[in-house]
Amino acid sequence: MAKIKKQPRPKAQTPKGFQDYFGADVTARAEMLNTIAGVYHRYGFDALETSAVETVEALGKFLPDVDRPNEGVFAWEEDNDWLALRYDLTAPLARVAAQYRNDLPSPYRRYAMGPVWRNEKPGPGRFRQFYQCDADTVGASSVAADAEICAMLSDTLEAVGIDRGDYVIRVNNRKVLNGVMEVAGLSGDDNEAERGIVLRAIDKLDRLGTDGVRALLGEGRKDASGDFTKGAGLADEQAEVVMGFMVAKRDTGAETVARLRELVTGSAVGLDGAAELETIAALLDAQGYGPDRIIIDPSVVRGLGYYTGPVYEAELTFEVTDEKGRPRNFGSVAGGGRYDDLVKRFTGQEVPATGVSIGVDRLLAALRAKGGMDQTAVGPVVVTVMDRDRMSDYQTMVAELRNAGIRAEVYLGNPKNFGNQLKYADKRHSPVAIIAGSDEFDKGIVQIKDLILGAEIAKNATLEEWKDRPSQYEVPRNQMLAKVREILDTQS
Amino acid sequence: MAKIKKQPRPKAQTPKGFQDYFGADVTARAEMLNTIAGVYHRYGFDALETSAVETVEALGKFLPDVDRPNEGVFAWEEDNDWLALRYDLTAPLARVAAQYRNDLPSPYRRYAMGPVWRNEKPGPGRFRQFYQCDADTVGASSVAADAEICAMLSDTLEAVGIDRGDYVIRVNNRKVLNGVMEVAGLSGDDNEAERGIVLRAIDKLDRLGTDGVRALLGEGRKDASGDFTKGAGLADEQAEVVMGFMVAKRDTGAETVARLRELVTGSAVGLDGAAELETIAALLDAQGYGPDRIIIDPSVVRGLGYYTGPVYEAELTFEVTDEKGRPRNFGSVAGGGRYDDLVKRFTGQEVPATGVSIGVDRLLAALRAKGGMDQTAVGPVVVTVMDRDRMSDYQTMVAELRNAGIRAEVYLGNPKNFGNQLKYADKRHSPVAIIAGSDEFDKGIVQIKDLILGAEIAKNATLEEWKDRPSQYEVPRNQMLAKVREILDTQS
Repeated sequence: MAKIKKQPRPKAQTPKGFQDYFGADVTARAEMLNTIAGVYHRYGFDALETSAVETVEALGKFLPDVDRPNEGVFAWEEDNDWLALRYDLTAPLARVAAQYRNDLPSPYRRYAMGPVWRNEKPGPGRFRQFYQCDADTVGASSVAADAEICAMLSDTLEAVGIDRGDYVIRVNNRKVLNGVMEVAGLSGDDNEAERGIVLRAIDKLDRLGTDGVRALLGEGRKDASGDFTKGAGLADEQAEVVMGFMVAKRDTGAETVARLRELVTGSAVGLDGAAELETIAALLDAQGYGPDRIIIDPSVVRGLGYYTGPVYEAELTFEVTDEKGRPRNFGSVAGGGRYDDLVKRFTGQEVPATGVSIGVDRLLAALRAKGGMDQTAVGPVVVTVMDRDRMSDYQTMVAELRNAGIRAEVYLGNPKNFGNQLKYADKRHSPVAIIAGSDEFDKGIVQIKDLILGAEIAKNATLEEWKDRPSQYEVPRNQMLAKVREILDTQS
Repeated sequence: MAKIKKQPRPKAQTPKGFQDYFGADVTARAEMLNTIAGVYHRYGFDALETSAVETVEALGKFLPDVDRPNEGVFAWEEDNDWLALRYDLTAPLARVAAQYRNDLPSPYRRYAMGPVWRNEKPGPGRFRQFYQCDADTVGASSVAADAEICAMLSDTLEAVGIDRGDYVIRVNNRKVLNGVMEVAGLSGDDNEAERGIVLRAIDKLDRLGTDGVRALLGEGRKDASGDFTKGAGLADEQAEVVMGFMVAKRDTGAETVARLRELVTGSAVGLDGAAELETIAALLDAQGYGPDRIIIDPSVVRGLGYYTGPVYEAELTFEVTDEKGRPRNFGSVAGGGRYDDLVKRFTGQEVPATGVSIGVDRLLAALRAKGGMDQTAVGPVVVTVMDRDRMSDYQTMVAELRNAGIRAEVYLGNPKNFGNQLKYADKRHSPVAIIAGSDEFDKGIVQIKDLILGAEIAKNATLEEWKDRPSQYEVPRNQMLAKVREILDTQS
């Protein structure tokens, strides 16, 4: 055996950019994912859980000119293969759709939920591991599949607690955008850079307003700090086409589509896109998903290059106050669209696919900000230990409470200092403490302390009131369960 | 922009040793974990979710003499730090207990569930990523904490569907074992190798029987294939002490403890261990966890070196038949014990801890083998597409079914070939298909096909019976939901 080198004491530290989640944060997320899975399942989607690890080859994350993976992923070499942690749930789906193409039903509706990893510089609120929750339909070229996902997204948001009216799902179509580019004379390989600038400019409409976007379509834009962003250099008539597209939204889907048709007149792909949007709008209307839930909105472009048809985005429209007390919109919590090329990488065959990804942590934060979620979970009833030799009696008490569905535990630290036991109950956010020493056992009674009421009284009561101890009750042992229940009921 | 080298088409393949989980396998596990979390929560345990990634330093997995991580973990270098995927849930708990020691309640009861990764040679049923589900109490030196975890494990097994009588939880104590070693003259550093052989021999009692173990305590053992395993080389009187310990189990915990006391007479640590077992047995007895659920059994040693006190193991006792039709016991599905040194690595201070880990995938396999779990999940009701232009009518049908809580979907593939639609429904294990073409729409009716009954008839019926199509029903459109419900009720 090798001689063991004495190691310095290791640091107890979460790795940089990662996070630990405790108690209610974990259970709230699990509950939300469970609710979402319920909606997805009812829509006929099947669960898929791939491993966290993929070959870098399957992820398609090799750098083009070198034989090592892209820096954006966590990767390592293993037996001459490069392995990496998945950076989203779409790449593994594409791999699965190709690998099991003979066994999976087609169309294949699947949902997946779990962590993904990004090897990026961590920042405030930006972590290197976070949850995604996706639903995709692979193998359906019909835009009915896109409409279905928009309807399902709407149902999902309401199921987790976002009220109707507090969100809107915006739908657009990349083909219309391509048609607009064509009409504006921006198609062709030599205009790729300009198209990129135009896309990014449209994406900033919310933040910069029409004037700001207009500037970026032309020469460029100087921001408040004096920094200059170079524009796409479009001529006025080109820029007007793009601007017209961006503000083409009308009161109803049908009107918006009609306006888009005018704008892309002469572009086959553009008209095709408008027709798809018309179908989506009609399908959603027929099912009652009106503009209070889902709207056609040409200003939605979605960053990712791989979308090829309809794109959609869910935005929360209620205001929250940020850490400085300023009101702000919560913004996007989910988005997706149609991507028809992802599976092709593996098989050479084009497979139509469309899907949505929910930003789980953002959605959780939104529910918290809205107050639709308990901030602190209720802790267990704590049975304190007055007499070490009575441990099995205390255990019997908690067993009785648990069997009645009440969360309960015996204090298991050193029982000598009773103050520590109450401090512990406080730290656990315990609603109730049970106290029984030899005196109580002799008399066949227990003391039951309402800790929530006790804390209130401690804050507000006079000394006289405090002395009356109205938050502590003495009851016969066989009435313990009933009394605890009564206290929990008044607390909630 | 760098010139993009043409990449060969990537292979669509799950990385070696990893696995993809589909549909019911995913949801069955999620449900089971949810049930377990419910029990743990009721016992006062709080959820903890650490990230998949830890520093290798915190995991303590550096090889002693070299500056690279142990081969058993997946690790990579990142900005001069070695990071690794966690290989269990205990090491991250030790890190968290040290890192947040001033903020966490003490004792800290926590549960954690999630995948862990092992960089080991994959084998049949042995994967490089698998689920663990742990509950630990950190900061409680009282063996009441160990008893509590044994009781909770018993409740957990019954909650997920293992009947009482189909499992047993065996409890032992390392201190008793150390006492036996002392009495047998095997304490001290120079007997470390012998103690290792003795431990491994006891661990094999089930498989080798008493004679086999006895041989390993002495000169060694030749197995059926002729291979020779060197033994510990104990003298007869030494071996007798160990053998006596191994078969010390009596009918009740009290009797077993009394026998153990005799065996470790003269060893302080051994007597201490026997006293701890006595306390555990008394606590469990008082709460009604009798020998039908939890027993004191000296033959349980648990492999891991780090246990310092009570150890426990849950074994399923019902027989299943293996792939060759032979009956066999299912064996261990959970185990754990007391480890008092893990947090000390970080802080220098000894922190008592005890906990259990459930082998989630084994437990799931056991439930499946026992038939206590649906093998195939019920698929969605499939609304077929006879007329592409009626898509919004079909969508309205599924919306109606979903709103009534019934899983349902429209067929979204190419509807041209109707046979493909029914094949699809078959692949999805759909219970019911709905059929409506222009004829049906004109008459205000729908056709409803009971696919389960239909499959049965197809297997057994005569041609005459088949022609009667008794598995297909024509109902007015407004009775669709009621009829579907009726069919689903008769199926289940």
